[in-house]
Amino acid sequence: MATFRLRVAYDGTDFHGWQRQPGQRTVQGVLEEALARVLGAPGPTLQGAGRTDAGVHARGQVASFRAETAIPAAALRHALAPRLPRDARVLESAAAPDDFDARRSARARRYSYRLVRAADPLLERFAWRPRSWPDAAALAAAAGALEGRHDCSSFRSTGSTDSDPVCEVSRARWETWEGGLALTIVADHFLYRMVRSIVGTALAAATAADPAAHMRAVLAARDRSVAGPTAPPHGLCLDEVLYPEVT
Amino acid sequence: MATFRLRVAYDGTDFHGWQRQPGQRTVQGVLEEALARVLGAPGPTLQGAGRTDAGVHARGQVASFRAETAIPAAALRHALAPRLPRDARVLESAAAPDDFDARRSARARRYSYRLVRAADPLLERFAWRPRSWPDAAALAAAAGALEGRHDCSSFRSTGSTDSDPVCEVSRARWETWEGGLALTIVADHFLYRMVRSIVGTALAAATAADPAAHMRAVLAARDRSVAGPTAPPHGLCLDEVLYPEVT
Repeated sequence: MATFRLRVAYDGTDFHGWQRQPGQRTVQGVLEEALARVLGAPGPTLQGAGRTDAGVHARGQVASFRAETAIPAAALRHALAPRLPRDARVLESAAAPDDFDARRSARARRYSYRLVRAADPLLERFAWRPRSWPDAAALAAAAGALEGRHDCSSFRSTGSTDSDPVCEVSRARWETWEGGLALTIVADHFLYRMVRSIVGTALAAATAADPAAHMRAVLAARDRSVAGPTAPPHGLCLDEVLYPEVT
Repeated sequence: MATFRLRVAYDGTDFHGWQRQPGQRTVQGVLEEALARVLGAPGPTLQGAGRTDAGVHARGQVASFRAETAIPAAALRHALAPRLPRDARVLESAAAPDDFDARRSARARRYSYRLVRAADPLLERFAWRPRSWPDAAALAAAAGALEGRHDCSSFRSTGSTDSDPVCEVSRARWETWEGGLALTIVADHFLYRMVRSIVGTALAAATAADPAAHMRAVLAARDRSVAGPTAPPHGLCLDEVLYPEVT
């Protein structure tokens, strides 16, 4: 048995999230079906680095699995391609060390959340248009308060099974993109719907007299009810999963 | 009866083009249905500035119609919004002079065609990924040969009903975007599938010893068979329609 690593991108619009669920179209389900066709049934079970929600996109999801096959690891990607729908792609396939697990081995994840300013069907599929447009400097100040090691319970939606609410946020910055503003956030791990809660809170903080103080107060409360509403899933994208070394 | 002007954006993926066709989902069809609900049946007939093909997108399509209504022109957009699907949007509605016709009054159209370099489900919906990546300087040289007044018969697909093959191309430039390279082209009018033929020809020209000379030779031939293959529709977008004065 060998261990494999896949780097995966998907348009989350028509998926019921990453995780396999009976009767639902999910990314894990679609990938495992394609793997079973290529490797023979029953195919392997995938371990995904991030269990993205319904509607959330990915450009750099990572998944691992173990299998016995004569197909070279780098060629697996090409064998899978014709068995995958247009909205899910394997960008890279590679051999991984025996103890590699896409979820447990990950040291950090990078997500982005895009806000789009004007109605535009070409941009709104992958970005959220808020009712009122936030001030960029206020957003930047609020984001700055997030960097560092914090108990992020205030940004954890109920229904979560995360054990450790303390996250190491190594980067939280707003940048401009074609359609408006995008938050890039990197942390060792994320709590359930954390980025979407942060975006909703950032919009509220941006209207406060002191956006950074508002964000700090929300963090200190460790109480979901003081945070802003959860932003919709379609603005969110899992951009990259980082590992201790390139495997 | 008053005349109205709409500025329209759509994700062309799930439309069978602009033009109304029985039994097909088209942008004109969807808009006319929404107008009939807002203004009362039978609704007006729309005149679109560009008859975009199946799969082609628009950010600045313009359509005109005549109707009798108490709804202020600027408010029409809001009345239409809840009657439109997510992939078609009216960005602006305005009153227009009696003799305004979105198609006949237009002085120029601006299209863009996006090439994307890497497999990416978030970018490929609105961009084409060619088999081999072209050299940017070669593309720029080939595009330069297009600017000016030319008989563009070599770029006209069969099935066309255009009368005048001579087009005034006021701009043809490749620019970088997030995913790779994009052609911006402005002309007084375009022949059937002209931009897509130009893109296919540009990719062929980019591998020639003298890309500009290749492009000039294709133009001079006035023969579709010497041009490159027609690039697929999903990379193309109608960005703007220009009129003699803002109406």
